[in-house]
Amino acid sequence: MKTYLDCIPCFIRQTIEALRFVTDDPRLQEKIIKEILIETSQLDLRQSPPYMAHRIHEFIRNFTGIKDPYKEVKERFNRAALEMYPKLKEIVKNSPDPIEKAIKISIAGNIIDFGVTADIDEKMVEKTLESCLKQELPADNLQKFKESISKAERILFLGDNAGEIVFDRVLLEEMPLEKIVYAVKGAPIINDATLEDAETVGLTDIVRVISNGTDAPGTILELCSDDFLREFSKADLVIAKGQANYETLSEVKDKEIFFLLKVKCPVLAADLGCETGEIIVKNNRG
Amino acid sequence: MKTYLDCIPCFIRQTIEALRFVTDDPRLQEKIIKEILIETSQLDLRQSPPYMAHRIHEFIRNFTGIKDPYKEVKERFNRAALEMYPKLKEIVKNSPDPIEKAIKISIAGNIIDFGVTADIDEKMVEKTLESCLKQELPADNLQKFKESISKAERILFLGDNAGEIVFDRVLLEEMPLEKIVYAVKGAPIINDATLEDAETVGLTDIVRVISNGTDAPGTILELCSDDFLREFSKADLVIAKGQANYETLSEVKDKEIFFLLKVKCPVLAADLGCETGEIIVKNNRG
Repeated sequence: MKTYLDCIPCFIRQTIEALRFVTDDPRLQEKIIKEILIETSQLDLRQSPPYMAHRIHEFIRNFTGIKDPYKEVKERFNRAALEMYPKLKEIVKNSPDPIEKAIKISIAGNIIDFGVTADIDEKMVEKTLESCLKQELPADNLQKFKESISKAERILFLGDNAGEIVFDRVLLEEMPLEKIVYAVKGAPIINDATLEDAETVGLTDIVRVISNGTDAPGTILELCSDDFLREFSKADLVIAKGQANYETLSEVKDKEIFFLLKVKCPVLAADLGCETGEIIVKNNRG
Repeated sequence: MKTYLDCIPCFIRQTIEALRFVTDDPRLQEKIIKEILIETSQLDLRQSPPYMAHRIHEFIRNFTGIKDPYKEVKERFNRAALEMYPKLKEIVKNSPDPIEKAIKISIAGNIIDFGVTADIDEKMVEKTLESCLKQELPADNLQKFKESISKAERILFLGDNAGEIVFDRVLLEEMPLEKIVYAVKGAPIINDATLEDAETVGLTDIVRVISNGTDAPGTILELCSDDFLREFSKADLVIAKGQANYETLSEVKDKEIFFLLKVKCPVLAADLGCETGEIIVKNNRG
């Protein structure tokens, strides 16, 4: 997906929120935001929004020397999600269609996305879970998802955020784990999950977890490591979680991809032809 | 009021909305937005937000040659407000405290502010009117407002937006008109009212209307004409409508000012210590 004009104020908002994680010094905040405005003025709108977010956060890290501004946030939401885990398992266990519930749970976890807003708390996660469980998934999409999983020999599951990966774990546990490789980011970017988070929530105990070798949000293939690209190429099905994975992979057609996400911004909603707040299970081949 | 970091994404959002009023050409939109990003990077945050908005809109006008992008919007909301006028008069007439209702009506009209969002329609205005009429005005503020009007010999009423001026007319008609001068903008800026709008809605028939001699939002005294500054200086009471007038005059202390506004953004809400959506009648002397 290309960058829309309306993404630009959102980059600036994201910069301000990120800055508040790294420094209380208003002069330093002002200095960085002004540099980012100039940086943004040089943006190529044909690139996807995560490409620009990548540049912004790299700039902030280099300027401040703080390598992982969202570290505490990631730990907090891993903890919160692990506390919810037994309840999530119970919901799936008591359902006549466990994988359908597990998909909704995994998508509900996608609310823990500090790229969209830094105004997220545990209560919001609980409320999102409730509302996601009530939403309908189109029956044909769900059927196609089940069939693709059953047919696939190698599934690459692209994770998104810390905390959210616990919700993904619930979904993974309803899938044929032996076929699955789960990918996380190679280094900290916003609150995206890294190998450390996967270990913290026990994901590494149940599935093979790999790094994508980059610190860009989503999956910008040109920036990923050769090891990751080999896995990507070998997979006959990709499950991509979250907005940034959709934004960076929506134009890939030579491989079957299922996008699982909660739509959290009006620009993406317009691109997808849906409403903000909807839960999406979308196959890239229609 | 100074410019906060959170105002910056809002400037960019406002630029995009304004651009959509002037051109459908995505390349021209992109070109201008990138220039505005650079312009914004040079911003002095000690200036008020309307100062920056002034520079942005001047840039857009000069770049595109379109002098009044919001012309249609202004005409539309003058018309819509004039259609509501008989109903507004009825509400005031049937009230045991007519001026209290008229103040709320005037503040409700402040929702017609295309600086805050371009997503405004007639239905929203109706809904805002309903909710404003239900909100409480602190009794001591209201009492002080009535006393100040009664004591004042020369009142300068600083108008805000087209459409909104019809709501102001309802308030003016409950005040001693002979004491009042009503000021509008000297030239088009966003959807702010100019002399043309004051004539359209019949304001010039009931009160002396003057231009402030500038095309900046709010009242940036350094940019106003000498004629206006003489009126400002002679007035012993100023009534200032809307966010931009608060943002540009909140630090003036050598003259009594009542700010009447609807709080439409979280930055201003934080500055005022209130919630977004609240209606404000605030005396600058506390």
